[in-house]
Amino acid sequence: MAVDMQVLGQQAKAAAFALRKFDTAAKNDALRAIADEIDARRDAIFAANAADMEDGRAAGLTPALLDRLNLAKRLEGVTADVRRVAELPDPVGEEFNIRTLPNGLKVCKRRVPVGVLGVIYEARPNVTVDVAALALKTSNAVILRGGKETLRSNIALVDAICAALESVGFPPDAVQLIRDTDRGYVRELLRLDRYVDMIIPRGGSGLHTFCRENSTIPVITGGIGICHLYVDSTADLKAAEDIVQNAKVQRPSVCNALDTLLVQESIAAQFIPRIIARLSADGVRFRVDEAAAAIAGTADNIQPAGDGDWDTEWLDLILGIRVVPDLDAALEHIYRHSTAHSDGILTSDPTSMERFLNEVDSAAVYINASTRYTDGGQLGLGAEIAVSTQKLHARGPMGLEELTSYKWLIVGEGHVRP
Amino acid sequence: MAVDMQVLGQQAKAAAFALRKFDTAAKNDALRAIADEIDARRDAIFAANAADMEDGRAAGLTPALLDRLNLAKRLEGVTADVRRVAELPDPVGEEFNIRTLPNGLKVCKRRVPVGVLGVIYEARPNVTVDVAALALKTSNAVILRGGKETLRSNIALVDAICAALESVGFPPDAVQLIRDTDRGYVRELLRLDRYVDMIIPRGGSGLHTFCRENSTIPVITGGIGICHLYVDSTADLKAAEDIVQNAKVQRPSVCNALDTLLVQESIAAQFIPRIIARLSADGVRFRVDEAAAAIAGTADNIQPAGDGDWDTEWLDLILGIRVVPDLDAALEHIYRHSTAHSDGILTSDPTSMERFLNEVDSAAVYINASTRYTDGGQLGLGAEIAVSTQKLHARGPMGLEELTSYKWLIVGEGHVRP
Repeated sequence: MAVDMQVLGQQAKAAAFALRKFDTAAKNDALRAIADEIDARRDAIFAANAADMEDGRAAGLTPALLDRLNLAKRLEGVTADVRRVAELPDPVGEEFNIRTLPNGLKVCKRRVPVGVLGVIYEARPNVTVDVAALALKTSNAVILRGGKETLRSNIALVDAICAALESVGFPPDAVQLIRDTDRGYVRELLRLDRYVDMIIPRGGSGLHTFCRENSTIPVITGGIGICHLYVDSTADLKAAEDIVQNAKVQRPSVCNALDTLLVQESIAAQFIPRIIARLSADGVRFRVDEAAAAIAGTADNIQPAGDGDWDTEWLDLILGIRVVPDLDAALEHIYRHSTAHSDGILTSDPTSMERFLNEVDSAAVYINASTRYTDGGQLGLGAEIAVSTQKLHARGPMGLEELTSYKWLIVGEGHVRP
Repeated sequence: MAVDMQVLGQQAKAAAFALRKFDTAAKNDALRAIADEIDARRDAIFAANAADMEDGRAAGLTPALLDRLNLAKRLEGVTADVRRVAELPDPVGEEFNIRTLPNGLKVCKRRVPVGVLGVIYEARPNVTVDVAALALKTSNAVILRGGKETLRSNIALVDAICAALESVGFPPDAVQLIRDTDRGYVRELLRLDRYVDMIIPRGGSGLHTFCRENSTIPVITGGIGICHLYVDSTADLKAAEDIVQNAKVQRPSVCNALDTLLVQESIAAQFIPRIIARLSADGVRFRVDEAAAAIAGTADNIQPAGDGDWDTEWLDLILGIRVVPDLDAALEHIYRHSTAHSDGILTSDPTSMERFLNEVDSAAVYINASTRYTDGGQLGLGAEIAVSTQKLHARGPMGLEELTSYKWLIVGEGHVRP
């Protein structure tokens, strides 16, 4: 079944225009209607999801991937999240930079929707609903493109969303799914600049690179984190142990998990054995430089760091350890190897804190805390659509405000430019 | 002479890193040193410019292009502008969204430079100095690519800038010029995503489209304005005459000049003859729809609007005039034909004002004022690097703050994520 992407684009743009009529209360009602409709259709959604799971098993998907695909234990959380988004403040319409110029012109900026979002993601059907809710809350239309493993689940969910939108008088085309997983449609989506204002890829670095290389629409790249912690000689080593363990072990498969631990030489002999003992109990394996190796000794889970290890996002229970003489060397290592996602220092020295905050140019720079906090929910945004590691538009966790643009409102009384 | 763009990129990135060491006072001193050095080298700069002018004349450049190229009457203004940029507030380092989360984590955002800018422009050597000054003020390195007509002028200016930077201990690679105007280098620049963070094209729509199609780096597109004014039946027609005249005539060659005038039917017979009489005196020619033609009658400077006229940015003393029954029809016309740059309504009806502000989604939306105010200087930004008509990062006039990004600073006391 061929998809006409031009038609999808036109429909999305028309829906985005129509969405502007609805105020915050109407949007929140629509979100609640969506949650209700998904709840009402749970049997049909579970049936579609079960068929996706069965095909996934037959295709030999890993247990981790099958778990991501599985809606059975997740659907209640998904609709609860939609109801929670309805409770969040609405950034659209907010006015700021309000001024009267010396000539009497009244000027301000007003937050407006971006327009049409294109979101490309992989095997998590819950993302379908999350993204639709965040887009609608900010009066944006969205074109969704999910993974092929989850097409039937996504169709069932988007059908529920569209039915709910129609029931409350919203344009159903505000949420459209590309109902065919041929990769050619991704390419087409990336060139629909006439209709689509922003592309958000959610997936691995291959997807991000593909989007950046092929898109004529602005792309929010991010999500790739080679994250560092530097422990200096003044650090509280007990706290440092806890932080390093949390950053590496709590959820190793995500982008804000720790990849490389840098340890100041003068405390290396003291700290490295402690951290290796502590993290070995969690099943962590280590890639260590020569100096760290001399301290760590030999064990099954310790091996020398090889070429490229400092440039690898592990996404697994693996930790690089490198000994550095001082802060300058730590900063130099981070400058060379960081993906500018999340990097931190563990220290009690105010000068080092200040220098680290100033000199590390990452989306999130930490003092004495775990890198795992780089997350919209943890940082108080109420929601998260993506984590950006690029510098334009938004950096770090992106919440509702980052799904808006602004326009200038300029009110005169017959003003002409001299 | 071949240019190694990879080397330019590396040098720019290293310079951007080095620039972070310098505080506002040091940056302002560097800007003043640049102005002084350009003044000191004025003979050499004028000689280079005279050679460019001579070649331009021989190549048959239009008087308008030759005027843009000419530095003779402009250099004093250029260095005065650099000294003025030194006086502006520095956005870099400013902290905002400062909060302490319920768990005690201290969180804020701090403005930081974007990093490395790539700026592509045409035959205006003054842009070379403007852009360098704005980039340095915000601690950004820049790679400049000017037009071939002005290569010698640009080399003389950038040599002066680099000498000044060196004299005050700044990295001279902070401002680099691609000293070869082969178009292949533009293509290479657009793919230097490893080193360059932001592309700013300054030129016609062809350049903007080329950049968007070929860049793997975020591009600020803009500068194309099909601008509208809608005069409704409640407008002060005397003020409307002045505003329309100012928007069309004051500087017709720029993007915020008026292109299409929409007139409400009920006042068309009254207003159209007045505006045609008034603007004819300025040499304006008109492209009118049928209803306007019936009112305007025949004259040498009046012709029927043809296919595509409503989608043309005139950049000239030409004005489209269309009669519409009401606000809805005006909004519909703007929705279909605007490039979302600058559009306004002239009215005294509060409901129409409100609807126009809400429903027109352009970078600048006006009530009872000339579209010519869409300009960083006019709107109080103190400077302008570009006017964006895209929705991400920045919209409308971009000043110093729009040349910054931000990073999150997160300060804990041993915080780990539960």
